[in-house]
Amino acid sequence: MAAKTCNVLITGANRGLGLEMVKQMIAKPCPGRQIFAGCRNPEASKCEDLRELARKHPGEVHIVQIDTSDPRSVADCAKKVGPQLGKCGLNLLINNAGVMPHNTLKTITARDMQDNFNTNLLGPIMVTKEFLSYLQAASKACGKAGMSCKKSAVINISTLLGSMARTHETFYAFPVLAYRITKAGLNMLTVCNALEFKEDGILFVALHPGWVRTELGGQEADISPKESVEGMLRVMESLSERQNGAYLDYKGEVLPF
Amino acid sequence: MAAKTCNVLITGANRGLGLEMVKQMIAKPCPGRQIFAGCRNPEASKCEDLRELARKHPGEVHIVQIDTSDPRSVADCAKKVGPQLGKCGLNLLINNAGVMPHNTLKTITARDMQDNFNTNLLGPIMVTKEFLSYLQAASKACGKAGMSCKKSAVINISTLLGSMARTHETFYAFPVLAYRITKAGLNMLTVCNALEFKEDGILFVALHPGWVRTELGGQEADISPKESVEGMLRVMESLSERQNGAYLDYKGEVLPF
Repeated sequence: MAAKTCNVLITGANRGLGLEMVKQMIAKPCPGRQIFAGCRNPEASKCEDLRELARKHPGEVHIVQIDTSDPRSVADCAKKVGPQLGKCGLNLLINNAGVMPHNTLKTITARDMQDNFNTNLLGPIMVTKEFLSYLQAASKACGKAGMSCKKSAVINISTLLGSMARTHETFYAFPVLAYRITKAGLNMLTVCNALEFKEDGILFVALHPGWVRTELGGQEADISPKESVEGMLRVMESLSERQNGAYLDYKGEVLPF
Repeated sequence: MAAKTCNVLITGANRGLGLEMVKQMIAKPCPGRQIFAGCRNPEASKCEDLRELARKHPGEVHIVQIDTSDPRSVADCAKKVGPQLGKCGLNLLINNAGVMPHNTLKTITARDMQDNFNTNLLGPIMVTKEFLSYLQAASKACGKAGMSCKKSAVINISTLLGSMARTHETFYAFPVLAYRITKAGLNMLTVCNALEFKEDGILFVALHPGWVRTELGGQEADISPKESVEGMLRVMESLSERQNGAYLDYKGEVLPF
């Protein structure tokens, strides 16, 4: 079969970077492709833009309910989406859902830390685990050697703020302790999964989207969601087994852990 | 006042490295010093060695009940220990309690991941937070510039397995996904706390004890608890503000994140 990305799952797809990814993906025609756009509350008003996209692109954009912070919701989503993937499996999983509340050691509570952990770290772990057999199926169905986002890949949306080597540059401007901790953990998950599933031909990369003007990034940020996602999609297209386990930014530059 | 380490708190002090730390510390006399040796179940049979030490060194070794994975237990411990610290405050906190179950993405459950997170990551966060005012008091009471483990410091017991840059060297020999993720997060906590409390004069360092023959490390490990703790105590004695936020091994070598 052709090495096209036919089945994609994006979590947190109702706003910000996730929504922009869906928009830019469907702007490039790809016959037979299915984009599963995950969001917590498909009926909520803040999912209207995504619902509009799904109405315009029936059969291509499927809205799926998934609360990544809840392992049962993740399992339910995999049960529903799995049969729709067919022989093609899942080619590309983008673990994009995340939260970034302000906190420091002085202000944080155990509950804050647990909530952050559940969304930013446990979420990607459980989503990857539940969809693993479909990622493996995609890799097998491709039948070619090597790795790519068209064959079978997991992109974990990380952040420069998860870089310990560069924390001193950003620390005082972004008081987001739990976010930094969970994203450093997400980078480690990426590195470990890259090794665990190397033989399966599944590519794992952690990607920093830049500092983006979204609800999460704030309006004083550097770049637009459009610019960020254009960059990230370009990087994703360029990825091969050489980048398996890498931590890159939206321009393709390697970041230090 | 003299810049001596007078008050020390060690979590997970009933066995392995924690117990060996207590033993080696009391072997070097230091008048007025108090070692608070934390363990989950002070009455349990596996605390007998620690109880024996406390009996031999009354007034110097105090066994304190603390389950670091439970924020209420941590808060209770701080309430009990706080008043015993006096003007000296808490000079040295060693976040040593940790767990290392075997798991990979294929075998891990959400519960496994949460349990690991609670002990290895939430624990050190909440212990540091609850004892923060006593660490600040110790720094003030010292009255000298600079940083040291004799003034005010938090040593987070980390691991080489938390190094992303070196994961490929150890990955297949140690299938401990949750441990790796939580220890990478602990390293990030160390880096962040080093910056947040720089002005308070509190030193934060992440320390890899080596691969040690303990219940956690297994009997085929490289070095004895004695050798590991001798190294770590030597490193701790040598630390200054130059190492604030560093990730070091028991020989004092810098590890890559």
